[in-house]
Amino acid sequence: MFKQVTEIDKNALEAIVGKQWVSFKDEIHPDYTHDEMTQYGCYEPELVILPGCTKEVSKILSYCNENHICVTVRGAGTGLCGGCVAIEGGVVMSMMRMNRILEIDENTMTCTLEPGVLLMEIIEAASERNLLYAPDPGEKSASVGGNIQTNAGGMRAVKYGVTRDYVKGLEIVLADGTILNLNGKTSKNSSGYSLKDLIIGSEGTLAVVTKIIMKLLPKPKMMTSLLIPFDELKKALEFVVKVMQLPEVATTIEFMEKEVIQDAQDYLGKDFPNKEYNAYLIVSYSGNSTKSMETMIEDCAELALKEGAIDVFISDTEERQSSIWDARGAFLEAIKNSTSQMDECDVVVNIDKVAEFCQFSKELSARENIRIRSFGHAGDGNLHIYVLKDDLNEEEWQRKVKICMDELYAEAIRLKGQVSGEHGIGHAKVEYLKDSLEDRQIDIMKGIKAVFDPNGILNPGKVIK
Amino acid sequence: MFKQVTEIDKNALEAIVGKQWVSFKDEIHPDYTHDEMTQYGCYEPELVILPGCTKEVSKILSYCNENHICVTVRGAGTGLCGGCVAIEGGVVMSMMRMNRILEIDENTMTCTLEPGVLLMEIIEAASERNLLYAPDPGEKSASVGGNIQTNAGGMRAVKYGVTRDYVKGLEIVLADGTILNLNGKTSKNSSGYSLKDLIIGSEGTLAVVTKIIMKLLPKPKMMTSLLIPFDELKKALEFVVKVMQLPEVATTIEFMEKEVIQDAQDYLGKDFPNKEYNAYLIVSYSGNSTKSMETMIEDCAELALKEGAIDVFISDTEERQSSIWDARGAFLEAIKNSTSQMDECDVVVNIDKVAEFCQFSKELSARENIRIRSFGHAGDGNLHIYVLKDDLNEEEWQRKVKICMDELYAEAIRLKGQVSGEHGIGHAKVEYLKDSLEDRQIDIMKGIKAVFDPNGILNPGKVIK
Repeated sequence: MFKQVTEIDKNALEAIVGKQWVSFKDEIHPDYTHDEMTQYGCYEPELVILPGCTKEVSKILSYCNENHICVTVRGAGTGLCGGCVAIEGGVVMSMMRMNRILEIDENTMTCTLEPGVLLMEIIEAASERNLLYAPDPGEKSASVGGNIQTNAGGMRAVKYGVTRDYVKGLEIVLADGTILNLNGKTSKNSSGYSLKDLIIGSEGTLAVVTKIIMKLLPKPKMMTSLLIPFDELKKALEFVVKVMQLPEVATTIEFMEKEVIQDAQDYLGKDFPNKEYNAYLIVSYSGNSTKSMETMIEDCAELALKEGAIDVFISDTEERQSSIWDARGAFLEAIKNSTSQMDECDVVVNIDKVAEFCQFSKELSARENIRIRSFGHAGDGNLHIYVLKDDLNEEEWQRKVKICMDELYAEAIRLKGQVSGEHGIGHAKVEYLKDSLEDRQIDIMKGIKAVFDPNGILNPGKVIK
Repeated sequence: MFKQVTEIDKNALEAIVGKQWVSFKDEIHPDYTHDEMTQYGCYEPELVILPGCTKEVSKILSYCNENHICVTVRGAGTGLCGGCVAIEGGVVMSMMRMNRILEIDENTMTCTLEPGVLLMEIIEAASERNLLYAPDPGEKSASVGGNIQTNAGGMRAVKYGVTRDYVKGLEIVLADGTILNLNGKTSKNSSGYSLKDLIIGSEGTLAVVTKIIMKLLPKPKMMTSLLIPFDELKKALEFVVKVMQLPEVATTIEFMEKEVIQDAQDYLGKDFPNKEYNAYLIVSYSGNSTKSMETMIEDCAELALKEGAIDVFISDTEERQSSIWDARGAFLEAIKNSTSQMDECDVVVNIDKVAEFCQFSKELSARENIRIRSFGHAGDGNLHIYVLKDDLNEEEWQRKVKICMDELYAEAIRLKGQVSGEHGIGHAKVEYLKDSLEDRQIDIMKGIKAVFDPNGILNPGKVIK
């Protein structure tokens, strides 16, 4: 379907960005063949190019579109569904050279970013000015462009929402090289269809994002985390529904079980404050006065004890908080480290169905006799469930992981959830997305894809196919 | 282009909903020929139909689509750009029979609504359960379906955002009658293109919304408003930029000038607490403890006095607050009442450009020798500017209003603003939207329209044409 990349194409593309920013065939670094999930296979692009500015992006796309060469856009490569992997070959366009924070504008409380800026860099730059970059995806070495393309969520979604909620404006380049500006720094907009919202979460299949204007908030002065143990997960998750109804919205509500904490301790070589109980919640609050923080904490602690919590540990010093959050931050790596291979799903269900879903995954683990670990964002219903290979042989593993994934997704759909809360679809979850949506909905998405990218050169084989 | 509605069509449509829910030609109530802005003309539909359920909506659309009859969907008719007016004739489908609050679900903090529910009804139902419906468009007798279709904003957008930010799920009916569910009650979603966000703000041109799931918040226990006079508007607006940088985000920041306050007093026959100064801000804060409210108010008042405010009046009783908010709520009606005819624009600019835009509109008023009134959401840059006919003759009025509107929109575009912050485009602002966007952006919107509605039967002549 797509034209292969030849020496002539290579020369033409080198003429746009300069030789040093192109690698071709054997020269390509193996990192470009996969994202964080090698489980979904490695795919070699034919050429990797790093544009330095929007104009170069425009010229590259225009050339590739005319020549029917497909282009997979790539950020920091920290995705979990193979979204930035060139499964059809062609060109990988890495946005990591366009990595400048162009502006932090305190008058409009916005920052303007190139797509290759890392999340940790934005957080730091905002923090230096006493501002908060509110979206909080776990992977801080992800690029903001990737966060936009997957509508990344994270732990603070309970209070602050997800990446989408902070995107004020985008500069995009269409497949044919046209540069468009979608909104700007204004807060409200009712001026035609929201193309900006269509691009967010489209995983590089509709357009390439070259500039991003994000909303910033004043940085809260204080944060306190409560670590709340329960004797069973079900009780903890039932409490979450109630805590959401308190007058102050918690910043974060995460759940975890004993085994995952143990994995994290082993991985970090660092003790978690408490690990004798079966299930834990971390509930965080942020605010600006000691008095209001005290009220929030008291309300939450009182409710917790009433609803069957064993205890409530308050972490109001930076040191205590970091012992909890370092562990929480290490869960994914710790689980990955504990096994030979894994697959994950990132379903989202209504918060009052989280307990039911977790119970289902436990029964599935027992029935299929395979280790399953999960943790997640209890306050927003977004769960990360890891099916682990351990010492299964390849054949058994493939058989079992297929059964487990099929069943987990089917259960999420049955509970009226969605197949991805924040990781996206990539190429690995295309079939599950298809199962979860009505055919007509997929047809409309295909129609929209054709409007933006008539030759289908952008990130083929992803999201819908 | 469209087929006229005949007796045969009338009979077919009556068979779907029952005779009592159809009116035809001369029977049609004149209210259906316009929205709140008769300035933009009255247009008679050929038939008005009120479906009672989603299935009936589906059957009506399917019939009209097959027969090339155009359909304009209508809510409470409180729009300001002619969005719900049948400028091409055909069928007006009023959603006002589908007006039930289907559920308030405290477990997921959501409400599920039919499109004809009025904003005031949702606010009340939520409030009874101590919950907050956060979007706050000024017109409380608007329908929620209309709010979705225009992405209505309102006064609390500074802290809480706009309608879009609270829509969790939609049930929609496509032009051919297909019923689709877009997301549900979950908080996060990264599962394919966000069709939900494309429908929000599409003004009935892409699909008919038949069910809406909205997020609710815990209701804050306290609210306090500050009335802050300045000797000139410019100083007031420059202060707004600074107040946005305080640790606590204000719920509302509105600006108003002496003349508008006088109009409101005359209209209501009720005194405003203070009216001797040229410009005023109302800044509101909400919270859950007296102590934290005190801190917010002190911080704001101190900053105000430092930045040149003449005084700060604190309204912490319900009575005092209502004297301010009643006046603010009456501005539009009061201005309308003070003149023979008017036109309005609803531009949005960056908050640090509001002063510049207001200055421009004052100069325009002087230059064209025509009365112009404005007020608006200083905290989010969304301005409502009214050009007033007073005793101008029709010819002068038409000439002057055209000059003023052209200049106001051009200035908003020059300042990188958007032509509509919250009222939408309808048919009255189509040319201004076209001027403000790149041609290719309009082409993409047209392409999307064709994907959803290949025969173009839904609300023709609106948004883009």
